[in-house]
Amino acid sequence: MRIDGRENSNLRKVKITRNYIKHAEGSVLIEMGDTKVICTATVDDKVPSFKKNTGEGWVTAEYSMLPRSTGVRNPRDISKLKLNGRSQEIQRLIGRALRSVVNFNILGERVIIIDCDVIQADGGTRTASITGGFVALVDACKKLVDDGIIEKIPITDMVAAVSVGIVGDEEMLDLCYEEDSNAIVDMNVVMTGAGEFIELQATGEQAPFRGEQLNKLLDLAQGGIKELIEIQKEALGQVANEIGRVTKDEKICSCNEEQG
Amino acid sequence: MRIDGRENSNLRKVKITRNYIKHAEGSVLIEMGDTKVICTATVDDKVPSFKKNTGEGWVTAEYSMLPRSTGVRNPRDISKLKLNGRSQEIQRLIGRALRSVVNFNILGERVIIIDCDVIQADGGTRTASITGGFVALVDACKKLVDDGIIEKIPITDMVAAVSVGIVGDEEMLDLCYEEDSNAIVDMNVVMTGAGEFIELQATGEQAPFRGEQLNKLLDLAQGGIKELIEIQKEALGQVANEIGRVTKDEKICSCNEEQG
Amino acid sequence: MRIDGRENSNLRKVKITRNYIKHAEGSVLIEMGDTKVICTATVDDKVPSFKKNTGEGWVTAEYSMLPRSTGVRNPRDISKLKLNGRSQEIQRLIGRALRSVVNFNILGERVIIIDCDVIQADGGTRTASITGGFVALVDACKKLVDDGIIEKIPITDMVAAVSVGIVGDEEMLDLCYEEDSNAIVDMNVVMTGAGEFIELQATGEQAPFRGEQLNKLLDLAQGGIKELIEIQKEALGQVANEIGRVTKDEKICSCNEEQG
Amino acid sequence: MRIDGRENSNLRKVKITRNYIKHAEGSVLIEMGDTKVICTATVDDKVPSFKKNTGEGWVTAEYSMLPRSTGVRNPRDISKLKLNGRSQEIQRLIGRALRSVVNFNILGERVIIIDCDVIQADGGTRTASITGGFVALVDACKKLVDDGIIEKIPITDMVAAVSVGIVGDEEMLDLCYEEDSNAIVDMNVVMTGAGEFIELQATGEQAPFRGEQLNKLLDLAQGGIKELIEIQKEALGQVANEIGRVTKDEKICSCNEEQG
Amino acid sequence: MRIDGRENSNLRKVKITRNYIKHAEGSVLIEMGDTKVICTATVDDKVPSFKKNTGEGWVTAEYSMLPRSTGVRNPRDISKLKLNGRSQEIQRLIGRALRSVVNFNILGERVIIIDCDVIQADGGTRTASITGGFVALVDACKKLVDDGIIEKIPITDMVAAVSVGIVGDEEMLDLCYEEDSNAIVDMNVVMTGAGEFIELQATGEQAPFRGEQLNKLLDLAQGGIKELIEIQKEALGQVANEIGRVTKDEKICSCNEEQG
Amino acid sequence: MRIDGRENSNLRKVKITRNYIKHAEGSVLIEMGDTKVICTATVDDKVPSFKKNTGEGWVTAEYSMLPRSTGVRNPRDISKLKLNGRSQEIQRLIGRALRSVVNFNILGERVIIIDCDVIQADGGTRTASITGGFVALVDACKKLVDDGIIEKIPITDMVAAVSVGIVGDEEMLDLCYEEDSNAIVDMNVVMTGAGEFIELQATGEQAPFRGEQLNKLLDLAQGGIKELIEIQKEALGQVANEIGRVTKDEKICSCNEEQG
Repeated sequence: MRIDGRENSNLRKVKITRNYIKHAEGSVLIEMGDTKVICTATVDDKVPSFKKNTGEGWVTAEYSMLPRSTGVRNPRDISKLKLNGRSQEIQRLIGRALRSVVNFNILGERVIIIDCDVIQADGGTRTASITGGFVALVDACKKLVDDGIIEKIPITDMVAAVSVGIVGDEEMLDLCYEEDSNAIVDMNVVMTGAGEFIELQATGEQAPFRGEQLNKLLDLAQGGIKELIEIQKEALGQVANEIGRVTKDEKICSCNEEQG
Repeated sequence: MRIDGRENSNLRKVKITRNYIKHAEGSVLIEMGDTKVICTATVDDKVPSFKKNTGEGWVTAEYSMLPRSTGVRNPRDISKLKLNGRSQEIQRLIGRALRSVVNFNILGERVIIIDCDVIQADGGTRTASITGGFVALVDACKKLVDDGIIEKIPITDMVAAVSVGIVGDEEMLDLCYEEDSNAIVDMNVVMTGAGEFIELQATGEQAPFRGEQLNKLLDLAQGGIKELIEIQKEALGQVANEIGRVTKDEKICSCNEEQG
Repeated sequence: MRIDGRENSNLRKVKITRNYIKHAEGSVLIEMGDTKVICTATVDDKVPSFKKNTGEGWVTAEYSMLPRSTGVRNPRDISKLKLNGRSQEIQRLIGRALRSVVNFNILGERVIIIDCDVIQADGGTRTASITGGFVALVDACKKLVDDGIIEKIPITDMVAAVSVGIVGDEEMLDLCYEEDSNAIVDMNVVMTGAGEFIELQATGEQAPFRGEQLNKLLDLAQGGIKELIEIQKEALGQVANEIGRVTKDEKICSCNEEQG
Repeated sequence: MRIDGRENSNLRKVKITRNYIKHAEGSVLIEMGDTKVICTATVDDKVPSFKKNTGEGWVTAEYSMLPRSTGVRNPRDISKLKLNGRSQEIQRLIGRALRSVVNFNILGERVIIIDCDVIQADGGTRTASITGGFVALVDACKKLVDDGIIEKIPITDMVAAVSVGIVGDEEMLDLCYEEDSNAIVDMNVVMTGAGEFIELQATGEQAPFRGEQLNKLLDLAQGGIKELIEIQKEALGQVANEIGRVTKDEKICSCNEEQG
Repeated sequence: MRIDGRENSNLRKVKITRNYIKHAEGSVLIEMGDTKVICTATVDDKVPSFKKNTGEGWVTAEYSMLPRSTGVRNPRDISKLKLNGRSQEIQRLIGRALRSVVNFNILGERVIIIDCDVIQADGGTRTASITGGFVALVDACKKLVDDGIIEKIPITDMVAAVSVGIVGDEEMLDLCYEEDSNAIVDMNVVMTGAGEFIELQATGEQAPFRGEQLNKLLDLAQGGIKELIEIQKEALGQVANEIGRVTKDEKICSCNEEQG
Repeated sequence: MRIDGRENSNLRKVKITRNYIKHAEGSVLIEMGDTKVICTATVDDKVPSFKKNTGEGWVTAEYSMLPRSTGVRNPRDISKLKLNGRSQEIQRLIGRALRSVVNFNILGERVIIIDCDVIQADGGTRTASITGGFVALVDACKKLVDDGIIEKIPITDMVAAVSVGIVGDEEMLDLCYEEDSNAIVDMNVVMTGAGEFIELQATGEQAPFRGEQLNKLLDLAQGGIKELIEIQKEALGQVANEIGRVTKDEKICSCNEEQG
């Protein structure tokens, strides 16, 4: 049994509160155990330069932790004049994950910015950001539809994410911080409603791992994500039915910083 | 009657939730109407250089708004590599206001950092930050006492703050954003439990004002702050009784950036 | 008697030298005792984005101290890559104070930048910057009139500022640095020629203060500002008569960073 | 057949030149086809703060591209005052990958910095950096041994990395830039000499992927990395035999920025 | 005899490799002894603002050293958020030197950026950058001619540069790092193919120098530059003959930052 | 005759006012025609790291222009977060020039910072900064002697600087801005009281120049500097006699950023 009494294949208690911040086009408070993230979606007309005059939109993400969301206070990025490397990496992951299910032609030449601000951290903040950010993204798209700006929700499938890892000899789902800091292998998985992978990131900084272990972890993740997608659907209610009515557009010119 | 049906001398609904973030030594969610600010207090051993080897402590504050706490998204400071001038000004105000009631000899050579993060803004975020930050400060001090690190809560009196302003011809208490953006005079007042002033900032950018108007505004503020202090006391319960058992220390060398 | 032999209600020796820097549209050296500030006014066509295509102008200010204007050398902002918080706060104050008497429709879609550079500091640099900056602003406007670019000086009234404070038990006018560093209450007051308030900032970081004390300080300030406005008028000569021929424009959309 | 005539399971021509820069403790030019990266290893006594007085060392990496290593010139980071997000992500990956095989107790309280500077880019620069950086790391460790500073090479196993991806319907090894920019799934794999995984990063931003596809990609990667490790061994000659004589140390406190 | 056996008037072994980086419009590896610099030339349409709509082009340069090009590792500029002062000075020198022989009317409204990246440093990196950068510049211009974008190579004469200095009592040509660090006077000379000076920078930080010494140094430099220009011509082959068919344009408005 | 009626070999009117800023250990206002620079010298105990525990001191300089010292307003460095390249280059020159006559053993382990702030610019600001900065440096050293901290003024000789240039066909001394902006060759010369060179920087960005022209320019400079040194001596009065009683120390390890 795990520290908090869960089975290896159990998620923590998940709660998704929609319309959490009144000003945003989409906004969600997602709680996974003691991890709490506010995800807002903002619709903006200023697309990045590589999208100008293409008729196509973009989705981007920013991730940050409040200074005291963690056990030890983290100075704000601005006090060091540097965006934290970990935040940088995470917000790139969130952006890629959400873009994978958006049809940018249908979205039209506008950008949706997903802000993920961790107000309390207890492991799994990046995957919670993806799972909650997806719901905020859907709400912002729904608003564009309701306002008559676009015709249908430009999203091809559900998306959710979860962490898995090996702690001691055990493969476990949805690690809390204490488990995470003892894990020898640590993996984040993003999947679609159709059960396909969007992103895998597995790290064995403490110990290398074998194919069998990878497969066990992927199985655990698959189960967890299935559950998470049910929870997202429940939170979205009727709106969930409007997802998946479009297909992904052709490979399009992506962000030019990827060219290396 | 005001936009939201209040009398000119009414506060909005105020709610103070203590222990809002599990990691911080003190943490509060303060809500004044639709304005919501998370205030955390962190105890840190690294005092600023002008306090080193003095045996005296310090209190400092940081203020920030989540990008989508406002109607239009504000880019994060780090994206411009500049701390927003307004935030800078506000966090200096919060720090001065709270320091005014702290005895730094009793606090001892440590710093308490008050982080005020606005998650939803509807006017009065700086005064809410002071009112909520005070409660977080008290909780962090109480913890130092309970942990046997200091002997008593090093706080001389209660502190709260409120905004007042002139909208049309009317002096009003606790302006919401819509009122604030129509105000011709706008004032923030910080007071002690003893009913004395700590800080006044009145601005007539739209129209200059006279002494009588100033006095009416001060009266309104006084009434509002009295109420706020009652709410703080209620939130603090027993702990409130431990405030005011010390007096302020002598004028001490302040932060050297003030020397201009 | 005070350190330098003045009465509590005396200003230090004030001197305003116009046309101090040959390149600027307006330029002033203001000396208040040993405090010396160069104030220049620059007319520029690039208005901030919230003024574009409105036909309205703007006034903004920047404040800085030369590294060795103070007893201890202050590193330049650029060496820390951060605009000093105190400078930030002061330049926002200068901007608000001067904007309060400008009619932006008559100024037309241009910006006047007031640069206040302290070359020697001995207390009261922010109020000297407002008093001197006002004269530079008038000169730049006069030049626009003389060049036939605008029709009349778009300024509704004179503006000057002074510091007051409580040192020991005494309320005093125009504190020098030594007095200022011993003050328990410290206040900056900006007023118009008509004797109305534009901005009050009172801080009791060392000790809270009562309404009576506030009133005494306001009286002292009022007297000092009256004198300062006479000195400004003398310096401006004939040009002073062209001030006040316009009224303030309606409340206009202000700088969007104020929206919090 | 592929653009450049290779089979799907073929690496491009790989060349590792040791001692490429005379000043560095270890230095390598690695060429994979037209991708060319200079990897240097610097031994430094200043460990990061979380390692001070632990007796343990650290390995860190920095990655950058020369402005004209790519088809379109990339402005230098310093011209934007921001470390490129992609570089940030890549250098974190390189650091984790190399640290996974270092025993930090045996290395002792010093840091080895691996600088990877891409002088010509044609896809796969991050994996080339890992493969080349490993050789530079070994050389720097060998020098520490030869200089009598440490007793044995503190490296538990060989490490190399390669990219794989799905282009059209085909799984391919070691993508050049043109292939990479057409790939719908794109994966970087880091493995040990023992054939275990250290890091997997798979991204289906263009299309989600299934478990079978993942497995095919992993097989291709495994084959490629085996070959790369042979090439590394050949380059290292005798020194290769001194690798693997130590085991990894226990899970140690890692970089504190990971705590989120 | 000198450390490395050369006569005082000898250059080190010089090697210029054209087309070193496949992506750039011009690219050179220049080696002078152990000093190695990659110089690339990029043609870009975005001229600086002071050239917009003038029909005239510009040439600018950037200079940087790889962190481990030197004996002790130099942190990257981005890690300090500041462009190194020495690099700043050097890249301004390279830009001025190359601009002195370019006819900007014939170049047309485009900019050529010369990136000089030192991969191994052993003294004389700035002069090597000019000598190598010139060849890259010519190649980029030649490409513009070959692509039919401009009519002739807009370059009036050859340009090369060399360092000279006084070590002990001896005037010497082309100092290596060890000599340079013992020099009491140190000078960089840039000359044209016609044997005229473009730039002289002589520094006697360790000891002042007299006119005779200056003249001896200039003679040495003249001889060295003559040789370097022969080597450039050999490297350029036929293309060298197309240089000098234009004359310099009239004095044109230069970069506005020079106005101080 | 020149624009302002001078002969080619005439300086503009020069005025050196000592003790211009009351707080600094040395402070000078230097005026050369309409060019006005405030030079202050600050004594500080914190030497740069390469001087720690050597018993030797250092001299460094910072240079900046007030935004409106020029015809067109220059934004402050902090607003761009970048130290202007030209300022960077100039402050390095000022530092080298002044260090050339300082004996750092006699100065002892302390740094003297020379701040040169241009309040009005009309050409020749960098040479005026050296000439004025030298006097401020002497005054700060004199104060160290008077305070009994060091035994004698650690300065080996006088130092002054002047600009010369070729305008049209004429070699001219001490160019004002209008001449400077028409010059085809432009040179700054720093010399000692003994008539030897410390630094020469000649630039022919508009046209290359020959040895004869160089010699004429050097002659003009020599004459001008002789005069400037007389003016410095007059300003320094008795103190001038205490200069030159020490000799320069041996070549010492210089600032490590020079190692490239």
